[in-house]
Amino acid sequence: MEPTVIQMAQAGAGTARASRGRPGRTTGRLAGREDHPEDTCIQVGRARFGGRQFVVIAGPCSVESEEQLLSTAREVRGAGAAVLRGGAFKPRSSPYSFQGLGPEGLKLLDLARRLTGLPVVTELMDGDDLPLVERMADIIQIGARNVQNFSLLKKLGRVDRPVLLKRGFMTTIEELLDSAEYILAAGNPRVILCERGIRTFETATRNTLDLSAVPVLKERTHLPVIVDPSHAVGHRRFVPPMAQAAMAAGADGLMVEVHVSPETALCDGDQSLRPEEFARLMDNLTAMAASFNRIIGPEAQGPAVGRVGGGGGPWA
Amino acid sequence: MEPTVIQMAQAGAGTARASRGRPGRTTGRLAGREDHPEDTCIQVGRARFGGRQFVVIAGPCSVESEEQLLSTAREVRGAGAAVLRGGAFKPRSSPYSFQGLGPEGLKLLDLARRLTGLPVVTELMDGDDLPLVERMADIIQIGARNVQNFSLLKKLGRVDRPVLLKRGFMTTIEELLDSAEYILAAGNPRVILCERGIRTFETATRNTLDLSAVPVLKERTHLPVIVDPSHAVGHRRFVPPMAQAAMAAGADGLMVEVHVSPETALCDGDQSLRPEEFARLMDNLTAMAASFNRIIGPEAQGPAVGRVGGGGGPWA
Amino acid sequence: MEPTVIQMAQAGAGTARASRGRPGRTTGRLAGREDHPEDTCIQVGRARFGGRQFVVIAGPCSVESEEQLLSTAREVRGAGAAVLRGGAFKPRSSPYSFQGLGPEGLKLLDLARRLTGLPVVTELMDGDDLPLVERMADIIQIGARNVQNFSLLKKLGRVDRPVLLKRGFMTTIEELLDSAEYILAAGNPRVILCERGIRTFETATRNTLDLSAVPVLKERTHLPVIVDPSHAVGHRRFVPPMAQAAMAAGADGLMVEVHVSPETALCDGDQSLRPEEFARLMDNLTAMAASFNRIIGPEAQGPAVGRVGGGGGPWA
Amino acid sequence: MEPTVIQMAQAGAGTARASRGRPGRTTGRLAGREDHPEDTCIQVGRARFGGRQFVVIAGPCSVESEEQLLSTAREVRGAGAAVLRGGAFKPRSSPYSFQGLGPEGLKLLDLARRLTGLPVVTELMDGDDLPLVERMADIIQIGARNVQNFSLLKKLGRVDRPVLLKRGFMTTIEELLDSAEYILAAGNPRVILCERGIRTFETATRNTLDLSAVPVLKERTHLPVIVDPSHAVGHRRFVPPMAQAAMAAGADGLMVEVHVSPETALCDGDQSLRPEEFARLMDNLTAMAASFNRIIGPEAQGPAVGRVGGGGGPWA
Repeated sequence: MEPTVIQMAQAGAGTARASRGRPGRTTGRLAGREDHPEDTCIQVGRARFGGRQFVVIAGPCSVESEEQLLSTAREVRGAGAAVLRGGAFKPRSSPYSFQGLGPEGLKLLDLARRLTGLPVVTELMDGDDLPLVERMADIIQIGARNVQNFSLLKKLGRVDRPVLLKRGFMTTIEELLDSAEYILAAGNPRVILCERGIRTFETATRNTLDLSAVPVLKERTHLPVIVDPSHAVGHRRFVPPMAQAAMAAGADGLMVEVHVSPETALCDGDQSLRPEEFARLMDNLTAMAASFNRIIGPEAQGPAVGRVGGGGGPWA
Repeated sequence: MEPTVIQMAQAGAGTARASRGRPGRTTGRLAGREDHPEDTCIQVGRARFGGRQFVVIAGPCSVESEEQLLSTAREVRGAGAAVLRGGAFKPRSSPYSFQGLGPEGLKLLDLARRLTGLPVVTELMDGDDLPLVERMADIIQIGARNVQNFSLLKKLGRVDRPVLLKRGFMTTIEELLDSAEYILAAGNPRVILCERGIRTFETATRNTLDLSAVPVLKERTHLPVIVDPSHAVGHRRFVPPMAQAAMAAGADGLMVEVHVSPETALCDGDQSLRPEEFARLMDNLTAMAASFNRIIGPEAQGPAVGRVGGGGGPWA
Repeated sequence: MEPTVIQMAQAGAGTARASRGRPGRTTGRLAGREDHPEDTCIQVGRARFGGRQFVVIAGPCSVESEEQLLSTAREVRGAGAAVLRGGAFKPRSSPYSFQGLGPEGLKLLDLARRLTGLPVVTELMDGDDLPLVERMADIIQIGARNVQNFSLLKKLGRVDRPVLLKRGFMTTIEELLDSAEYILAAGNPRVILCERGIRTFETATRNTLDLSAVPVLKERTHLPVIVDPSHAVGHRRFVPPMAQAAMAAGADGLMVEVHVSPETALCDGDQSLRPEEFARLMDNLTAMAASFNRIIGPEAQGPAVGRVGGGGGPWA
Repeated sequence: MEPTVIQMAQAGAGTARASRGRPGRTTGRLAGREDHPEDTCIQVGRARFGGRQFVVIAGPCSVESEEQLLSTAREVRGAGAAVLRGGAFKPRSSPYSFQGLGPEGLKLLDLARRLTGLPVVTELMDGDDLPLVERMADIIQIGARNVQNFSLLKKLGRVDRPVLLKRGFMTTIEELLDSAEYILAAGNPRVILCERGIRTFETATRNTLDLSAVPVLKERTHLPVIVDPSHAVGHRRFVPPMAQAAMAAGADGLMVEVHVSPETALCDGDQSLRPEEFARLMDNLTAMAASFNRIIGPEAQGPAVGRVGGGGGPWA
């Protein structure tokens, strides 16, 4: 597994803060900027979330087979993705839908990591699976439906892995920060936030991507903020423009679904980019990046840096 | 502990159904009316959910002390409540808010049950606490934030307790039925559904109580459906009219927050009725009940009965 | 045309209030209870909105023909409706949908009124049609889409007809009161508010009926508040339970769509009750009414009375 | 007044289409791409909506005084805005809020146009004001609250001015297209659509900017699509990142509120950029533009061109 580095010194702050914690407010939070104005940078392999690098996570919605995962992993690595995604445990509305390959899926992710060198992120749904997931994944994802599963969040405080915390489709920005606080207060300072669309009355898209959440979050917290346009829009042809918009809004990266054969995907094929579409998106992002003082590939290693990115800076 | 009875013969149906389950549709669900047109009745002590009885669950948001719990329990029993509620594990947005008394709260609930004879319902947040909660509670509640915690739902399939499943504040009616299906398909046929308000743009109330969900659910499922007006409206003075409206809309019962001293409550005091307000509500409900062919107290025991209640019947 | 009576003395208050009006707050509004604690009662024919009578408005979505309107009018009068509804000008999302019969529809409404004795309510969409609608209708309806058409609202201040103001599907309770204030401040004190469902993520019903708005409105304003369950739920079989729930929540009346032949309706047939279904609903409402100190038919005439109705009273 | 040009030949199509119009569907609409695949370009002065130019409309929320309007107009022109905005008739929730200067405001807009050469856009609320607004404004704006004021929309079909149609804060994308269709079917082919935020449960921003609507609209209609980030986010410091994101998502332009002294603004000061903030945003947009094949200033005149812009193209 790749070594991970965190350039901050928050360890042990949890207990002291808890005693003076002021619920429901940005100030007083470990996640808040008040006592921690500089951006937190989280390094995973060659990916560095929260700095100048615009980190792209890509891969299939769910791990379906060795062939599917490895071919997709090679494609996204070739196009410039910095992290591989893939679900082994799948939260599905119906118990009769494909529930993921489980531990077998984790093994395939581990294999893909060794073969491609890409760190992997996968979702944890049940605390019982935490030891296994911790061993197999570089980043542990908490999905939208578990964003307020506080018991699970607390368990992640004791884990030596960064956590990718997705906003629920029902969760306010303040509640997302409160959920992150559960992890931070329990001892794990490495949390990456991810906007992935909220529920509204609009049905043209699967959810409504709340890109305004990016500058709001960047103002209120020092944690990295990325965007998942795939689940938000639900149709692959709307993914690239929203991915570009995410960079322009000041996001620190993306999580994008890519599948070598979306038509046969067991889950969310409609919203998965084909490899060539993903490559074209990466080209566009690379072309855009300079305007936002971003780079797609890894930046030269150095100490923690302040925020240098695009639109989300302190404007007024 | 009170004996519980279930008048239905669904045992063992889970496996067979799973193989032909059609996700996302009412038909084909164990919870659906297609293969199970008659109402399911769930007996807990003298409370019988899903029949002619209009079951009122009442008690404090969270268990705070022996004095607080016992005095509230006696008040609600005296006013006609059939089940006592009280939270020992509290899902709170912020880690710095009161998190409940935990196992100590469960013991107090057990004490209140023995002293008052009322069965108790309490929330389960973590599968690790299931053995303890199963031993101490008559009904296990799954809160709005865990309605799509599928790992937890599956574990409840193997439990010999009815489950009170609350709708999430951004869960569709179909998703609520899907979540119930996780429990049923895992082997536990005793699920009580609870509408408790959804998130909308309106801020005059804490949430927007979706009472239409009652007749929609009663049409689509044979499971009992109750309503929690307290969390929905968030202000005690709006609780009684919405409680009455719930009966008129065809609900099988209520869950209402009552506190002997709302001003000093550690959680949700604004929405808790005082004992005298609760007693007055019970009087109103009793006066209404005859119009809806409902009774507040226990009905004469008998075999499972078809639906005889109010507004939710097959109209058109 | 039936004579109309308003038992209140607000005339001339508009100007004085305007100068000290405090926008965005209940206090200071002409519609607010602060300076006008007693309920406003609005008499139209034998219907009296805001008192003990539970006023039921019924009729087709749109006026389609003499035969359709007259047969429906006779049916709803026979079942106990106090006011006839019917749209001559129809706000339709698409310009290619049936737009209503226009002035010809108004003439048919006038005919139905003379033949049945029922006062009529119809929607005004355009200030240009105001003289005609004022002459032909007893109550002028402003639809959900025009609730913030402030130019139109101002024109209604100078009209000698009560206004039935429907909440928009996007309008907060405070904004609805603000819109009513436009009419009151312009000189017309006779405004009836109507909750008709708001937009949410839920798709099982056409809109989500926000019944909590009834007690909230009854607390904040002295104006009568009625409920339209038909547009809210969108399916006729859910209309009766929600109509019953509206009475139980403290509403002063209903507006219900009824059509002699819903299958052939040019507009919203799915949500229209058949005459026999409407009659059955009226029977249910009559049976319920005593529990809420309500009567369905006209009460003995008298001076303006304080609020005596059901669930929406000052509880806590 | 500047001459306006429309490069399309839809005149007279309204009547024929109406007869075969299929409501609620993209196909069959005059606004749809089916029979009109190429983008519509609308020329107003040196601004050309729908082509390669990224058109920025800027100015104060409401016209307050000659000094305020002229100084703001000069600032936004200097920074590169192509059109001046300013409200003379203001739709305000409360009748006691500032309602705009009315005809006097229109005269000031006319003066600003003559002094700066910028075409002006202003809102029409009432059909009675149409002759005056038509004479004074280059583009007529229909605000969010009137997006389904169908009577007003029909009147705009007979006007020789482009219409800027803002999406309502609870209007679906399909309904916005239906509202545009009212104008097109009535004979005016020059409609510019504007996304400006929708209502959701999130309260950190005034509304939730639905940027996904941009690629969805660009796919379904040939009409130009711009974005108003100011009303969407409600706080000036979130305006620039969302303005940048709008370009990246494929929008054809922006409408941004700018005020020389936001602290003293009579309306929406919190969301208005100061002139120097606007100038900085324009610099950023100019730097970005090349990546999206956009230009900020006017392009060399030519015949109607196909879509060459950014993210909203036909991807999959």
